[in-house]
Amino acid sequence: MSDVNAAPAKVHVSLGARSYDILIGPGLLQRTGAEIAARLPGVRAAIVTDSNVAADHLAPLQESLAAAGVESAAITVAPGERSKSFATLEEVVSGILDARLERGDIVIPLGGGVVGDLAGFASGIVRRGMRFVQVPTSLLAQVDSSVGGKTGINTVHGKNLVGVFHQPQLVIADTAVLDTLSPREFRAGYAEVAKYGLIDRPDFFAWLEKNWQAVFAGGPERVEAIAQSCQAKADVVARDELEKGDRALLNLGHTFGHALEAATGYDSARLVHGEGVAIGMALAHRFSARLNLASVDDAERVEAHLAAVGLPTRLSHVPGGLPGAEQLLTYIAQDKKVSRGALTFILTRGVGQSFVAKDVPASEVLSFLEGALSQ
Amino acid sequence: MSDVNAAPAKVHVSLGARSYDILIGPGLLQRTGAEIAARLPGVRAAIVTDSNVAADHLAPLQESLAAAGVESAAITVAPGERSKSFATLEEVVSGILDARLERGDIVIPLGGGVVGDLAGFASGIVRRGMRFVQVPTSLLAQVDSSVGGKTGINTVHGKNLVGVFHQPQLVIADTAVLDTLSPREFRAGYAEVAKYGLIDRPDFFAWLEKNWQAVFAGGPERVEAIAQSCQAKADVVARDELEKGDRALLNLGHTFGHALEAATGYDSARLVHGEGVAIGMALAHRFSARLNLASVDDAERVEAHLAAVGLPTRLSHVPGGLPGAEQLLTYIAQDKKVSRGALTFILTRGVGQSFVAKDVPASEVLSFLEGALSQ
Ligand SMILES: NC(=O)c1ccc[n+]([C@@H]2O[C@H](COP(=O)([O-])OP(=O)(O)OC[C@H]3O[C@@H](n4cnc5c(N)ncnc54)[C@H](O)[C@@H]3O)[C@@H](O)[C@H]2O)c1
Ligand SMILES: NC(=O)c1ccc[n+]([C@@H]2O[C@H](COP(=O)([O-])OP(=O)(O)OC[C@H]3O[C@@H](n4cnc5c(N)ncnc54)[C@H](O)[C@@H]3O)[C@@H](O)[C@H]2O)c1
Ligand SMILES: [Zn+2]
Ligand SMILES: [Zn+2]
Repeated sequence: MSDVNAAPAKVHVSLGARSYDILIGPGLLQRTGAEIAARLPGVRAAIVTDSNVAADHLAPLQESLAAAGVESAAITVAPGERSKSFATLEEVVSGILDARLERGDIVIPLGGGVVGDLAGFASGIVRRGMRFVQVPTSLLAQVDSSVGGKTGINTVHGKNLVGVFHQPQLVIADTAVLDTLSPREFRAGYAEVAKYGLIDRPDFFAWLEKNWQAVFAGGPERVEAIAQSCQAKADVVARDELEKGDRALLNLGHTFGHALEAATGYDSARLVHGEGVAIGMALAHRFSARLNLASVDDAERVEAHLAAVGLPTRLSHVPGGLPGAEQLLTYIAQDKKVSRGALTFILTRGVGQSFVAKDVPASEVLSFLEGALSQ
Repeated sequence: MSDVNAAPAKVHVSLGARSYDILIGPGLLQRTGAEIAARLPGVRAAIVTDSNVAADHLAPLQESLAAAGVESAAITVAPGERSKSFATLEEVVSGILDARLERGDIVIPLGGGVVGDLAGFASGIVRRGMRFVQVPTSLLAQVDSSVGGKTGINTVHGKNLVGVFHQPQLVIADTAVLDTLSPREFRAGYAEVAKYGLIDRPDFFAWLEKNWQAVFAGGPERVEAIAQSCQAKADVVARDELEKGDRALLNLGHTFGHALEAATGYDSARLVHGEGVAIGMALAHRFSARLNLASVDDAERVEAHLAAVGLPTRLSHVPGGLPGAEQLLTYIAQDKKVSRGALTFILTRGVGQSFVAKDVPASEVLSFLEGALSQ
């Protein structure tokens, strides 16, 4: 699997007319042009990337496209969550229109989840929906944000409150580009990998407990972990494309996590998405234990694994301090996974046994948060 | 039909799970709350309107909603095409989020096509798609823009280049609110009514030639003309929801029309959409005659009817002058009904016999425009 010329792993996302493949393996960036030309003959492309990713990976992608005869323009935005804004969306949309792309042409988000969400959204609204091919370059984007068609930006009201469901034509995850990702960002993405085990794949979680070092080091375990994660996500998405039911399970750890991101002003120096999710998953397991749904042992097992890979697991791990429990609850209530005023959480009966809990009383959350803030 | 308490005319838009009704009749604004409460029990609403429309029609709508127990907030934007911008979109999105509406709640665009396109788009992207109920108040919006789910805004690159397909839950067209519309705006909307006859309903066009004065005056002919128009649009939309083929017929007169709107800077003092369409339809018929597809008699018949109701039909009717033919052609090429560089036009073989013509040579268009500019 570490042979650059080996056939990539492939995961299929089954969504009827909107189905697509995810290709996973080292060195795929160099084959992106050929894969696109074979599947979407004659298209032109607008690459959207951020300046961090552009430094190492834009030129190889451009060369690969050119070699396959795919004309491309490039649009580079500032790195970081703040680019998921109306202002940057407008810039990206303008860039795509400046390139005079037509409806059948493609946008290629080359980057992490920020670029994927932003440029995926842009591709969903330019000419009321262009095609796009995700080339995720962060671990989080490869195992999560590039798969499933959720796109969007943030507003002052909260994260991802504005966007569209828009499925890509193809996802190309080059596992070798992750070598330029900072260890902190790799760990953050790993939180989402662990999440799939915690949702409903206890064997995968146990495999990760044994093999996480190899996943971090690269090689076949990395491809395996990413393919397993994509398969897990693809399964959920196929069951519930528009997040009306089951898909909510993917939000394990995210209700708390999003509140923490909002509370830290989306400042990545303090907290990145996956770190928020890691703390959120630890909290979800502890909250479930407190509600007598799961055992304290399971909560401790989860916390131990996340801590072993170097992820934060407690509110006190967030540098710079947090607002009080009341304010955190306000952030939670504004999060979009709120249905008609009742609080919806993903809770668990143990490792790999998560479920959607509706009507969780706000008072329970509040007193749990008060306790958690003092730990 | 002019009895305020009579059952409204009803047109059904058949789109599977996305089907909906259009209710048409005088006095429906006062029944909007009851219609919404009956169909969407428990929803809250954000009304989006412009200051012109708000003056006469916001309070009655708010009262109707309140009487039916539907809580509502109101967001008022500046009237005019310039509100179909990223800046105003962001304002509307913010207003909806400020009102803390959830995914199942509704946005109610109350206004002409500008408000409908803008607020429909906002409802399509807030929380990745909220529900919405169109309450069109201009003739153009009642017969065209509120039906079919096309929403969007303009950019410097052209009109409606950014948006989503997003179908409403219900359309409520109160034919009495048209009494406060300026005669100029009523005429502009009438261009779209005539369009349906010209596309594929020659009998309807002949009926309009006889009955247009009654349509302008109000009464049962007005309801009839609007219902016929909605039925015509609903038929096309049901055949081609995402504008991949047939739906392009609805663009009769629009390729020229959009170019004229762009050329006049979307300045409604100079040209409103329906006036551009009227000129565009006259040009499409004259261009078809020039290409020996249709008779000069038919082109003259169309021009005569549009002129009779007071619509402009020639390039020289646009006040303030136009750029040259080359520049107009550039606007046409940037219009989104361009497929891989070839010019696509809606041409005709005569009244009620329009068709989609692909690969119209740019040189033919150019020399036709040169001639038309001098008339
Ligand atoms: N759409 C979805 O379904 C979904 C799911 C999960 C998360 N998300 C979103 O994803 C975002 C987080 O994604 P992320 O963690 O990838 O953030 P990100 O895009 O900000 O990437 C993290 C950092 O890594 C850099 N980077 C990315 N790839 C690199 C590489 N190969 N080499 C060097 N640097 C690289 C980026 O420039 C950035 O500084 C959040 O906005 C979140 O809301 C979306
Ligand atoms: N989505 C679609 O399928 C579609 C189709 C056709 C046109 N459109 C769009 O529709 C727009 C044009 O629509 P429009 O002509 O309704 O423009 P508009 O919304 O600007 O309305 C025209 C004017 O009439 C005023 N007005 C509306 N209703 C009134 C009433 N009852 N009383 C008094 N004043 C009233 C408005 O304030 C405005 O000044 C364009 O932006 C066009 O692109 C969209
Ligand atoms: Zn996540
Ligand atoms: Zn029109």
